[in-house]
Amino acid sequence: MILTVTLNTALDITYRVRSLRPHASHRVSEVLERPGGKGVNVARVLAALGHPVTVTGFAGGATGQVVRDRLTRTPGVLDALVPVAGATRRTVAVVDELTGDTTQLNEPGPVVAPDEWAAFQRTYEDLLAAATAVALCGSLPPGVPVGAYAGLVRSARAAGVPVLLDTGGEPLRRGVAARPDLVKPNTDELAELTGSHDPLRATQDARRRGARAVVASLGAQGLLAVTPEGRWRAAPPARVPGNPTGAGDSVVAGLLSAEAEGLPWPDRLARAVALSAATVQAPAAGEFDPAVYERLLGRITVTDGTAAA
Amino acid sequence: MILTVTLNTALDITYRVRSLRPHASHRVSEVLERPGGKGVNVARVLAALGHPVTVTGFAGGATGQVVRDRLTRTPGVLDALVPVAGATRRTVAVVDELTGDTTQLNEPGPVVAPDEWAAFQRTYEDLLAAATAVALCGSLPPGVPVGAYAGLVRSARAAGVPVLLDTGGEPLRRGVAARPDLVKPNTDELAELTGSHDPLRATQDARRRGARAVVASLGAQGLLAVTPEGRWRAAPPARVPGNPTGAGDSVVAGLLSAEAEGLPWPDRLARAVALSAATVQAPAAGEFDPAVYERLLGRITVTDGTAAA
Repeated sequence: MILTVTLNTALDITYRVRSLRPHASHRVSEVLERPGGKGVNVARVLAALGHPVTVTGFAGGATGQVVRDRLTRTPGVLDALVPVAGATRRTVAVVDELTGDTTQLNEPGPVVAPDEWAAFQRTYEDLLAAATAVALCGSLPPGVPVGAYAGLVRSARAAGVPVLLDTGGEPLRRGVAARPDLVKPNTDELAELTGSHDPLRATQDARRRGARAVVASLGAQGLLAVTPEGRWRAAPPARVPGNPTGAGDSVVAGLLSAEAEGLPWPDRLARAVALSAATVQAPAAGEFDPAVYERLLGRITVTDGTAAA
Repeated sequence: MILTVTLNTALDITYRVRSLRPHASHRVSEVLERPGGKGVNVARVLAALGHPVTVTGFAGGATGQVVRDRLTRTPGVLDALVPVAGATRRTVAVVDELTGDTTQLNEPGPVVAPDEWAAFQRTYEDLLAAATAVALCGSLPPGVPVGAYAGLVRSARAAGVPVLLDTGGEPLRRGVAARPDLVKPNTDELAELTGSHDPLRATQDARRRGARAVVASLGAQGLLAVTPEGRWRAAPPARVPGNPTGAGDSVVAGLLSAEAEGLPWPDRLARAVALSAATVQAPAAGEFDPAVYERLLGRITVTDGTAAA
């Protein structure tokens, strides 16, 4: 199975309102809830693609229980979350029906105690024994040391399990130095890591810092991959309108699933871009429409070599 | 014990954000949660005043379980909520730290099925046997018939239990016709019921429609009471700045507790106004500051007879 790690799990709540006006009272016409956090989103897409996946990280309180109950009901997903004393955070996305825009409210989430972090690390080591790949996704909750991902990358490498890291800031900087197989920064994360706003230069620099391969997400322009096997750029046929929430998580799921199926890099990238675009176009944030995915898959342009520059 | 009925219970969540801007992403700096719905708020104030209270109504889903767990931990409050298949609603109050203003998001709540409504009515009849007074509070959830409060008023009268009704619109119109002992409308509810915007005229009209006594809430101007024992107006010493959330529920708790202690009308009204003002001034919405309450209590002006006009 593929293992995904989400240290900052969430219950993602979506509210539809007619029009959001500060200081007014609003009737919510529709409430949607789903387990969230980047690794959880990756797991849902992997399971939908037919890849068995185990989810670990932290869950606590009544909201954590809702997250666990819902994960347990998701076919193909195994819940291996570790209990935490504090309550799992909620995120509330308020969708304005008039404009289609979203206003986001993110709870801070629980502080992880040292013994909880130690318990997680033991669980993670145990789960690595059965994992074919591991994805470390998202921000670190308060209480988890900033070098956490670096340690988790080293454990995966020691266990011989390919490891993908998808985070930003100092956790990414330290994680990259521990030599993960793949990192997937967006342009902002890449610029913060390397100091360069040139995607190719920054991607090459990220490799020099320790990542075996780098897939940079260029937003609507698709992906730029610099790997030991070569260099590619993959782009959707046209600019895709919609909600980008979860698009990056679909990229991770696309890369991991295609690698698990033994596909070469160009096919991995095409799948990742098609899944990402199908996620942007889905009516619910972070879902993807399988029909849109299938239709887009044959229309992704993958160019290789120096064309990537 | 005093019984409070809340058919539309809620989990009231308060988020503090630096400044709410539509279409932006916000970090919530503080999360507060408490059981809500008008009758639940009344029960919390009654318990704080030393009056044992039983809470009934509906609770369902994970949110309903949180409401029940918290009620069980509130000293003096007994949980007699009836299970419902749907999930209890949440309300989210987003407090803007820069302006102090609040933006409210209210979930619709569950639809109550006919067998759930029947189960509630049986529980209510059972609880009436031990009740010294009953308060019927708030709006009706979808699925509950619009004449619900009229039926609950008649059951209380048949059981010889004094009944207070605090609601609006058609449920109030029908409830008043079933001859409750007391109704506590605000000026908008009173105007909707009677067609008159003159508080004294409207209050007298509400009595003619069936209410034995009417205590009209005039907002910052205090209360106007028209009863078989006389007519009074009660007002705080000065305009009280703050958050009016829960002020009306504190009025209900003040009236019920003072009546249970055998106090005459002027004392009941003074307590209700002082509690209401202490609620408006409290930092957390719907709480009240006992020290502020004690200090205000001796400073409420109660005028009687024609002075009420």
